Amino acid sequence: MEIITANSNPKIKNINKLNKNAAFRKEEQVFIVEGSRMFRELPVDRVKQVFVSETAYRKYEAELSVKGITEQDGRLVVVSDSVFQSMSQTKTPQGLLAVVDRYHYTMDDLISVMAKHEGGNTFLVLESIQDPGNLGTIVRTAEAADVTGIIIGGDSCDIYNPKVVRSTMGTIFRVPFVYVDDLMGTVDRLKEHGIVVYGAHLDGQNLYAGKLEKNNAFLIGNEGNGLTYELSAKADRLIRIPMAGQVESLNAAISATLLAYEAYRQRK
Amino acid sequence: MEIITANSNPKIKNINKLNKNAAFRKEEQVFIVEGSRMFRELPVDRVKQVFVSETAYRKYEAELSVKGITEQDGRLVVVSDSVFQSMSQTKTPQGLLAVVDRYHYTMDDLISVMAKHEGGNTFLVLESIQDPGNLGTIVRTAEAADVTGIIIGGDSCDIYNPKVVRSTMGTIFRVPFVYVDDLMGTVDRLKEHGIVVYGAHLDGQNLYAGKLEKNNAFLIGNEGNGLTYELSAKADRLIRIPMAGQVESLNAAISATLLAYEAYRQRK
Repeated sequence: MEIITANSNPKIKNINKLNKNAAFRKEEQVFIVEGSRMFRELPVDRVKQVFVSETAYRKYEAELSVKGITEQDGRLVVVSDSVFQSMSQTKTPQGLLAVVDRYHYTMDDLISVMAKHEGGNTFLVLESIQDPGNLGTIVRTAEAADVTGIIIGGDSCDIYNPKVVRSTMGTIFRVPFVYVDDLMGTVDRLKEHGIVVYGAHLDGQNLYAGKLEKNNAFLIGNEGNGLTYELSAKADRLIRIPMAGQVESLNAAISATLLAYEAYRQRK
Repeated sequence: MEIITANSNPKIKNINKLNKNAAFRKEEQVFIVEGSRMFRELPVDRVKQVFVSETAYRKYEAELSVKGITEQDGRLVVVSDSVFQSMSQTKTPQGLLAVVDRYHYTMDDLISVMAKHEGGNTFLVLESIQDPGNLGTIVRTAEAADVTGIIIGGDSCDIYNPKVVRSTMGTIFRVPFVYVDDLMGTVDRLKEHGIVVYGAHLDGQNLYAGKLEKNNAFLIGNEGNGLTYELSAKADRLIRIPMAGQVESLNAAISATLLAYEAYRQRK
């Protein structure tokens, strides 16, 4: 077994560059996944490389072998604990890091997934969500609330940002998502497929006062500024999450959660 | 008008120490509030000092004067823009920073607030919530969902941490909260007051399948490990937030939101 002990090794330098450089990650069409929890859910066929510390190798060798990730197949790289420490982006590294191929869903994919959801569909349309924790949490909640797909536009953050990937807790491997340049046109396309588009608005109808349409999409706006007027004007219906006290708005991930879960609750 | 132009001024050094040193903040029994949004909601009688940049002074002078915060009353301190920049903990400083007296709610206060909520009460009991963004978001959602009070125990983060304060979006000024050393004993106390305690558990009853008790408390566990066995065993009822797909758990702030909002929805 070969163990890499030098940070100057080209494989290690490559990982450091992938970790630091979003443009390089995009160019290589990969993203980085860290941590033992995420590892259990790793889609093996998308894994290009796995880096494991010596200590973690002893613990996870069997598990990796079952997944078919071995030194022989060229995907497994064992490194010294100190080299791993230098590669890791987490405070308490667990000794596992994978380079994974990106997803390439299209709007066509998202539309075609609809047929599988007989009970109804929910889409989340995100406009300029900029906080990585919010985006990751939205992806995580989306799977739990049986969301069909996530459409991301405006000046939103990169879903392959390591912070986002971590906070998805593995759901990034399963929830379909697509980045679009033309959010307005995309909303029109959803409407053409019979999806009723809801925009959150203080003058809207109370979320809990009526029934949502079977196929729905919720527009979720930027953390500081909410939805742009242009996108908001595209909504078929305005809807309001009731709020007690003097609260003016909710966190973007919280709003997305309450909307998606209410649709899920009504479907069940 | 006196304008502080040197970082070495004792008032500025004091703020820097308050910003950096949690123990000193506690010793002084204050917390730091930044940003123009939070300012609108500032409880004037708790404000010890307001620091304002020259630029912001021109913009907010009238507003501060209406609040009774003036140079004459000794609470208003004007500093040069560059000094303000050095004091600020935010990326894009808005030129407003306040030193505010801490709150000292007790469990007695929280219990006595119950009488005001005729329709029913919800308490959130947080065990070792460690992410500042999660704690801040929980406080924000709590006001929106008409939560009576938040009880914080275990190894939870400090609510006066500037990151938490920011993510509460001003709700920290209005939602009653209390830190307790004895979380078990506190849960017993809630029960003595007729509050039914719900613990989230995968084997519990579906949250959306029945009616919640009128006076309820929800136990919310740590981000990585969930509830401890000891606290979970204190619950009167186990409850489960339904989750589709392969999701094993939700983010702590998301769980707290879904539980508190379902109680709020049923009350209305």
